Amino acid sequence: THWLSCMACSSLGAFPALSPLPLARAHGKSFAHRSDLRQAKRILVKLGSAVVTRGDECGLALGRLASIVEQVAMLQNQGREMMIVTSGAVAFGKQRLRHEILLSQSVRQALHSGQNQLKDMSLPVLEARACAAAGQSGLMALYEAMFTQYSTCTAQILVTNLDFHDDQKRRNLNSTLHELLRMNIVPIINTNDAVVPPPEPNSDLQGVNVISIKDNDSLAARLAVEMRADLLIALSDVEGLYDSPPGSDDAKLLDTFYPGDQHSITYGTKSRVGIGGMEAKVKAALWALQGGTSVVIANGTHPKVTGHVITDIVEGKKVGTFFSEVKPAGPTVEQQTEMARSAGRTLASLEPEPCANQTIFSPLNLSIGLRQIAVSSQDSVGRVLRRTRVANNLELEQITVPIGVLLVIFESRPDCLPQVSALAIASGNALLLKGGKEAANTNRILHELAQEALSIHGVKDAIQLVSTREEVEDLCRLEKMIDLIIPRGSSQLVRDIQRAAKGIPVLGHSEGICHVYVDHEASVDKAIKIIRDSKCDYPAACNAMETLLVHRELLRTPLFDQIIDMLRTEHVKIHAGPKFASYLTFSPSEVKSLRTEYGDLECCIEVVDSMTEAVDHIHKYGSSHTDVIVTENEDTAEQFLQQLDSACVFWNASSRFADGYRFGLGAEVGISTARIHARGPVGLDGLLTTKWVLRGEGHTAADFSEQGSMTYLHENLPVAQVLPGRRTTS
Amino acid sequence: THWLSCMACSSLGAFPALSPLPLARAHGKSFAHRSDLRQAKRILVKLGSAVVTRGDECGLALGRLASIVEQVAMLQNQGREMMIVTSGAVAFGKQRLRHEILLSQSVRQALHSGQNQLKDMSLPVLEARACAAAGQSGLMALYEAMFTQYSTCTAQILVTNLDFHDDQKRRNLNSTLHELLRMNIVPIINTNDAVVPPPEPNSDLQGVNVISIKDNDSLAARLAVEMRADLLIALSDVEGLYDSPPGSDDAKLLDTFYPGDQHSITYGTKSRVGIGGMEAKVKAALWALQGGTSVVIANGTHPKVTGHVITDIVEGKKVGTFFSEVKPAGPTVEQQTEMARSAGRTLASLEPEPCANQTIFSPLNLSIGLRQIAVSSQDSVGRVLRRTRVANNLELEQITVPIGVLLVIFESRPDCLPQVSALAIASGNALLLKGGKEAANTNRILHELAQEALSIHGVKDAIQLVSTREEVEDLCRLEKMIDLIIPRGSSQLVRDIQRAAKGIPVLGHSEGICHVYVDHEASVDKAIKIIRDSKCDYPAACNAMETLLVHRELLRTPLFDQIIDMLRTEHVKIHAGPKFASYLTFSPSEVKSLRTEYGDLECCIEVVDSMTEAVDHIHKYGSSHTDVIVTENEDTAEQFLQQLDSACVFWNASSRFADGYRFGLGAEVGISTARIHARGPVGLDGLLTTKWVLRGEGHTAADFSEQGSMTYLHENLPVAQVLPGRRTTS
Repeated sequence: THWLSCMACSSLGAFPALSPLPLARAHGKSFAHRSDLRQAKRILVKLGSAVVTRGDECGLALGRLASIVEQVAMLQNQGREMMIVTSGAVAFGKQRLRHEILLSQSVRQALHSGQNQLKDMSLPVLEARACAAAGQSGLMALYEAMFTQYSTCTAQILVTNLDFHDDQKRRNLNSTLHELLRMNIVPIINTNDAVVPPPEPNSDLQGVNVISIKDNDSLAARLAVEMRADLLIALSDVEGLYDSPPGSDDAKLLDTFYPGDQHSITYGTKSRVGIGGMEAKVKAALWALQGGTSVVIANGTHPKVTGHVITDIVEGKKVGTFFSEVKPAGPTVEQQTEMARSAGRTLASLEPEPCANQTIFSPLNLSIGLRQIAVSSQDSVGRVLRRTRVANNLELEQITVPIGVLLVIFESRPDCLPQVSALAIASGNALLLKGGKEAANTNRILHELAQEALSIHGVKDAIQLVSTREEVEDLCRLEKMIDLIIPRGSSQLVRDIQRAAKGIPVLGHSEGICHVYVDHEASVDKAIKIIRDSKCDYPAACNAMETLLVHRELLRTPLFDQIIDMLRTEHVKIHAGPKFASYLTFSPSEVKSLRTEYGDLECCIEVVDSMTEAVDHIHKYGSSHTDVIVTENEDTAEQFLQQLDSACVFWNASSRFADGYRFGLGAEVGISTARIHARGPVGLDGLLTTKWVLRGEGHTAADFSEQGSMTYLHENLPVAQVLPGRRTTS
Repeated sequence: THWLSCMACSSLGAFPALSPLPLARAHGKSFAHRSDLRQAKRILVKLGSAVVTRGDECGLALGRLASIVEQVAMLQNQGREMMIVTSGAVAFGKQRLRHEILLSQSVRQALHSGQNQLKDMSLPVLEARACAAAGQSGLMALYEAMFTQYSTCTAQILVTNLDFHDDQKRRNLNSTLHELLRMNIVPIINTNDAVVPPPEPNSDLQGVNVISIKDNDSLAARLAVEMRADLLIALSDVEGLYDSPPGSDDAKLLDTFYPGDQHSITYGTKSRVGIGGMEAKVKAALWALQGGTSVVIANGTHPKVTGHVITDIVEGKKVGTFFSEVKPAGPTVEQQTEMARSAGRTLASLEPEPCANQTIFSPLNLSIGLRQIAVSSQDSVGRVLRRTRVANNLELEQITVPIGVLLVIFESRPDCLPQVSALAIASGNALLLKGGKEAANTNRILHELAQEALSIHGVKDAIQLVSTREEVEDLCRLEKMIDLIIPRGSSQLVRDIQRAAKGIPVLGHSEGICHVYVDHEASVDKAIKIIRDSKCDYPAACNAMETLLVHRELLRTPLFDQIIDMLRTEHVKIHAGPKFASYLTFSPSEVKSLRTEYGDLECCIEVVDSMTEAVDHIHKYGSSHTDVIVTENEDTAEQFLQQLDSACVFWNASSRFADGYRFGLGAEVGISTARIHARGPVGLDGLLTTKWVLRGEGHTAADFSEQGSMTYLHENLPVAQVLPGRRTTS
C-alpha cells in the first residue's frame, strides 16, 4: 500500500536520474545576521550525535529523534525545503543485531528456566558495516512512521564520498534531490556505510567500530553547497565553537564566528572522538559558508532544548555558533556588557557632584523627578549603613554599592530611557537598554544624549543601547554578565521575562489587582473621591483599582447608591462578586474570577462583613500590590494597615499614589511585587546593594578562640561619620 | 528474522492459553505514601491522551511516546514488571489513512503539475473502527522498533470489555500476561477497537469518531487489579484531581486523595470529552485502590516533564494526584505552610518583648548569638525606615515587615535549627524547616522546644518541621506558598536548590573562592598570620582562602619563603598558577583552573604585578564572596577596598571573619553571594522586607493635576518617631 514511499525508499536508493535540472541558479549569498535566518527557504539539518545515545549502551536516541522529526516536519509544513543528513544506522543496527543474537542464544533457555538471563550473556563484537546494513532499513522505517504523523513523505538517499568526485553521479544526485524537494518530500541522506572501507577501531562507542562520522560533516557541507541550501544546521553534542578548549577557565562560547577570526580559536589538544572533532566541523562549516550557505553548529542532545533547537535556530535565536561572512560594525551585546560594566565601575568611584546632574535630561521635561534623583544621588553610593567595632582595631562597615550591570527592557515608551538612565547614573550602575523597534530612532537619540553627558567624565560606555536585532530571550540568558533585569511595560512583558530569565533576578510586578475597601464608618465624600480616582484616573495602570470591597452595612444606604451612580456616570462596567450578587434581585454579570486585572473601565464589587473579612479577601485574591481602606475610624484603619500584607497599604488615599514620583523617589525603576530586595515603587535605593568592609591589623579568627588573646566587642558605632578614603577617583 | 517478536505480536493477539496460573497469590495492599512507590514491582502505565496530539491535526505524539517508551524500558531494566495500556491506534490509523487517500488522489496530479496541493484537498470523514484497524499494526511496529533500542521485547494484547465478563477468557488473559511478564516481555494492551460497537460522534477529535476511551480507564483498573499490579499510573492531559473545577479561583491540585475525601471534590459541570472525564477516572482509580493497587493520575503531555513523569512518580515525587487508602496522621506540607503563614502573621503583630526571647534556646550553648538576636529583635519589625510628607495631611512611611514564609533546608547540622528559628521568630517570619534524615530525632526535639516556647504566645504553628518523607525538589515548587528558600549546607546543596526552585528566590552562596592578596608593602607578621588563619583555621568553610595572590616583587624575598615554609608546615598542598609556574624552575603541579574551591588543605598561588592586577584577577576568577588585602600602605588598601566588587572586602584581617556571628549579627541565616536583597553574611535584616504606608484625608491623584488644588511637598521627616498604632495585638 505504501507505493510512493516504497518507490522513494528503494528505487531512489539506486539514484535514478529522474530529470536533470540545469545548474543555472545564481550562487546564494550567506546571511549576515541570525535574524535573517527566518528567511531561510532551503535548510539541511545534519543530525550527527544528536540521535545517538552515549554511555554504556550505544543506541538510537528515540526521544531526540522524534522531536527533531517534529521540528523538521513543522518547518516543511511552513513551506521550507528540508533535508536531513542522518546518523544512527550503525547504532540502530547494533541494537537490533545484539537483540537478535541474544534472543537466538537464550530463548529456549529462558522459556524453560523462567529466568531472565539476557543481561548476563556475553556479546560478540559487531562489525560496524554489518551493523549499518542491519540498521539502515529499520532507521528508514522509523523515519517514515514518524514523518507520516505529520503528513510528510520521506525518501532515502545513500551516498559515498566518491559520488561527489564523479561529475555524472553528482549531477544525478543533485537532480534526484531537487525532484524530491519539488514533490515536497524530505530527503534523508546517509553515507552508504555498508560499502565503505573497513573502519578504524574506536573505543568511544562501546563494542562498535566507527565509520568515520567526520565524513558526515563534509558530506553535509558538500550537499548544502551543491543544493544551494540557505542554511546548514549541524547538530552534535557540543554547544558550539569556543574560543579556547571547553572546560578551560576562559573558554567562551562564540555566538557568531567570522572566517577572519580563525586565528583567535584554540582547539583542544584532543579532538573529541566519534563526533568528528570541532576542527573538522569548523573546516566543513567555513567551506559551506564560502559556498554561500549559512551555518549554525549547535548541541542537539540537551533534553531541555532538543524539542526546539532547530526551530529556535531558524527563528534567529542565539543557539550554538552562527557562521557569518559579514562582521557587524558595532560590538556584540556581550562586548557591550563588558564595556558597560567596566565604565560602570569607574562611574561608581566618581565624586557625586559632577555626575548624575539634572542638566543631562532637563530639556525633556522630566526635570523635577530628575532633580530629585540628582539630590539623592549625592549620598547614594558609599553611604555607610552600619558600623561595628568588632574588636580593638577591627572595624566593620556596611556600605552601599551599585548592583552592577542592569538590563532594562522597555516597550514603546521612550520616556523611560532618561528616567532609568538618570537612576542608573545616580546609583553608579552600568546599564543595558533594550527598547522596542517602534521607538528605535527616539531611543537612539536619547541614548546619544546620555552618552554625551557621560563622556565628560570619561564613562560614556556605562550606558549601552542594545540593537533591536537582539532577542529579549537571548539577553535574559546572559546570566554571568547581567545582575538584574528590569522590565518596563505590560504585565505580559514582565511575565514573559520572568519566565525567560535564567538565574538572573527580575524586578517587576507581574499583576496589579488593587482593592479599595469602603468601611461602614467611611466618609461619603472621601469614598466617592477615592474610588473614582483609583478606578478612573488611568484605568490601564497597575495601581488602578480592580475590586471594590464594600462593608455589608453600607448596602442600600445613600453612600452605596452614590458609589454606583458615580461608577455609572464614569462608564465603569460593574461585575458582581458572588456574595454581592446574592444580595441583589437583578445583579450585574457575575465575575468569572475574583482575581482579574481588568486594566479598563471595569471593576468587580464584592461585599464583606468586616474589615477582617476584607483583609482575608485581599490576601486570597489580591496581588499584594496596593490596597486601600476608606474609613473615619482610626483603630480600624491602623489594624488594616498593620494586618494587610501588601507592598502599599493606604488609608483614605487613592491607590494611584503607588508611584515612585508621587512617593518622592524621583523617577521609578518600576513597581515591585516581589517580596525581597525592593517592594512597591522602586527608586534609587532599589538599584543599590551593600558590601562589608573590614579593617584590621592582622586579626585572625584564631585570636578569638578559647586559647586566643582577643574578645569580640560588637559595639555599634555612629554611622554619620564619612568613611575615610571612599570615593577615591581611580 | 523477528520470530519471537512475531509470535508475541500475532499469535498472542489470539489469546492462546499458554499456562493457566492458579489465582492463589494473596491480595496486595496499596501503598500508604508516595515514597513507598519506589518499591512497586509490577506497574501498569495507562497512556491515555499522553500519546495523542490535540488541536487541528489529531495524530500520534511521537516525542512523548518515545520518552514514555524510554522510561518504561528503564524501569523494566531495573527488574520491574511493566505493562502498558496504550491509546493512539485510531490517531495513528487516521494519519495513515489520510496520507494514503491523499496520495492516491493526488499523486499523478502532483507529479505532473509540480505543485504541492496536498494540503488543499478535502478529506473524507474516516470511521474510527477502520482507523483503529489501520493504525494498530503500525502502532505496534513503532513500539517494537522503539523498545528494541532498549533490548526490550513487546507483545500485543487486544481485549474487549467482554473478555472480563467471561471467566475462562479472563483466566486465559491473566495467564498470558503472567507468562509474558515471566519472560521479561512488556505487554502492550489495547482495546480491540475494530470489533467494538459503532462509536458515538465526537467533535473533540477532528474528523474522527471516538471509541469511548473511557473504557481504557476501567480497562486499566481492571487489568491492574486482575494482575495484582502494585501501581497504576494513569496519564492524561490534566494535572490530576482538583478539589474544584480547574480554572476556578480556588481550585487546588490534590497531591493525595483519600477515598473518604470524595465529598470534598466538585467535578466540573462538563467533563472533558475524549479523555474519559475526571469523574470516570476517579471511579476507576478508587476501584483499583480497593483492589489493592496504588494509583497516580498525572499529566503526560507537558513537553518539559514528559521525559521523566513516569520515573518521577516511581521515585515518589509529587507528580499528579496519588490515591491512598491511608490518611496520614499529620497535616500535609501545604497545610503546614498555611498554618505557619497564619501563625506568622500573628507573630509579626506581637509586642517584641515576650517573644524572640533568648531563654528559648539558651540551654543549647548558642546563648551569646541568640541574645544578640533577642536584643536586635526589639526593633526589627515595624521599624520606620523613611518618612515623607507627600503633601499636606498626606504622610508616607516605609516600615520593615517580615518576608513571609521561609523554607530552610539544612543538611545534617541540627545547630542550624535553633539559630534559624530564633532569627525567624525575631523577624516575625513563619518557618518551614526541612532537615536531613540523619538528624531527624534531634531536629524533632529541637522543634518541639521551639514550638513550646512559641505556644506561650499562641503562635506555636509559626515554625513547622517538614516530614523527612518530603522531597526537597517538591518543596522548591511550592511557588505560591513559600517566599524565600534558605539552604544551609554544601555548595552542592545550594546549587541543587537554586536549580530546583521555580520562581522562589534562594538566599545562599553557590561558591566561596576567596583570595588573599599580599602586597609588596605587606607586613611579614600580618601576612603569615592572615594566610595561615584564612587557609588553615577551617579549610572546608566557604570563607577559607582558595587562592593566594602575591605581588611579583615579593618573589625570592624572605617573606615569600616564610609563607611557603608556613604552608608546608601546615601541610597545605600548593598548586601553581600559570604565571607563578613560569617564574619557577621546579614548580608544583600547575592548577587545572584558577576558579577552584578546594575546601581542603590545598590552595593555588599566583603572582600579580600590582594591586590593580590582583583586583582584575579576583573579578575574573573569584566568586565575589570574601577577599583580603595585606598591606601597610593605606592608600593601596583603600583603593582595593573601593575597587573590589565582592560581598566582603577586608584589609589586614583573615577571610574567616566573613560570618554573621563574627560580624555581630547574632546568628546568621547564611552567606549570600547574590547581588540583590542581602549580600555577605545575612542576619536579621536579611529576613525583613518593607511596606509603604500612606495616610491621607481623601487625597486623589487628580488633586495634583494641573487643574487640581494640591502640590507635592516630598518633605523628608525624621524617622525616630514611633509609628502610632503599630504592633497592635490582633
